[in-house]
Amino acid sequence: MAKSQYIVVVGCGQLGSILANHLSSEGHSVVVIDQNEHHFSKLSTAFSGFRIVGDAVESAILKRAKTDKADCFFAVTDQDNINLMVAQIAKEIFQVPKVLARVYDPAREQSYRDLDISTISPTLLSAQAFLDILQPSQVVQA
Amino acid sequence: MAKSQYIVVVGCGQLGSILANHLSSEGHSVVVIDQNEHHFSKLSTAFSGFRIVGDAVESAILKRAKTDKADCFFAVTDQDNINLMVAQIAKEIFQVPKVLARVYDPAREQSYRDLDISTISPTLLSAQAFLDILQPSQVVQA
Repeated sequence: MAKSQYIVVVGCGQLGSILANHLSSEGHSVVVIDQNEHHFSKLSTAFSGFRIVGDAVESAILKRAKTDKADCFFAVTDQDNINLMVAQIAKEIFQVPKVLARVYDPAREQSYRDLDISTISPTLLSAQAFLDILQPSQVVQA
Repeated sequence: MAKSQYIVVVGCGQLGSILANHLSSEGHSVVVIDQNEHHFSKLSTAFSGFRIVGDAVESAILKRAKTDKADCFFAVTDQDNINLMVAQIAKEIFQVPKVLARVYDPAREQSYRDLDISTISPTLLSAQAFLDILQPSQVVQA
C-alpha cells in the first residue's frame, strides 16, 4: 500500500461515496462531509473514516474536519458553485496541498484553473469516452 | 477524415451538444433530439446537422430522425431511465448497430449490459480520474 494520506471529501453522493469507500479500503484516513446524513448510507460497512453532517462552505465545518491537516481535498458535491467555493477555501485558508474539484460545466474550468485548483469534468471525460468508442484516437474539446 | 456516419443524439445538454458539435465538425451527419428547443442554443453556429424537438421515447420521433438508417445512436439525456428506454428502442426496434448510453448510476449498468447496450458512466470515469491524480495506477470499481 502507498503511504497513508489524510483526505477530506465534500459531498457523499455517488462519486463521493465511491471515492471515500475506495480510499478507506486502501488504508487512507478519510473524512466525508455532507449536508444530508442520509447520503452516508452509500458508505460501505467497511468504511473506517469519519462522517460530518454540515455545510462545508462554513469554515467551522472544515475546521472540525481538520482540513488544515489534509494532504488532499476533494470537492464533489453535485453543484459546481459549491465545489468551486469549498475548493477555494481549502486551498487558500487551509492551505491543502492537493485540491481537486468536480466541475460539470466545462466553461467554468478556467475559473478553477485561475485558482490553482485541479478539475475533473465528467462531461468532457464522457464525451471523450463516447468518441473513443465511435472512432478511436480523436481528441475532443469543450 | 474517417468515413462519414449517420448519428442520432438524444439529449442536447452539455454532453449531447459537445458530441453533436464535434461530430458535425468532423463531417458526420448528425440529428439531435431534445424535448426543449432552447437546449439547441448550445449547438455551435457551424453545426450542420438536424434538430428535432420532441420526446425520443415516442417511436414517431425516432422515425422522423430516420433512426433505422443510423450507424450510431447516443442516449445522453440527464435521466438514466430515459436513456435506457430510448437506447433499448434504438437497439431492438430500429436495429441500430452501435448504441451507447450515458448512465449516472453505476448500479444500473448491468441492466444495459443485459440489453447489449454500451454504457459510459461519468461517475466511474470521474472516480478513476480523481484516483489517477491522487495515486496513479489504481483501478476503481463501483
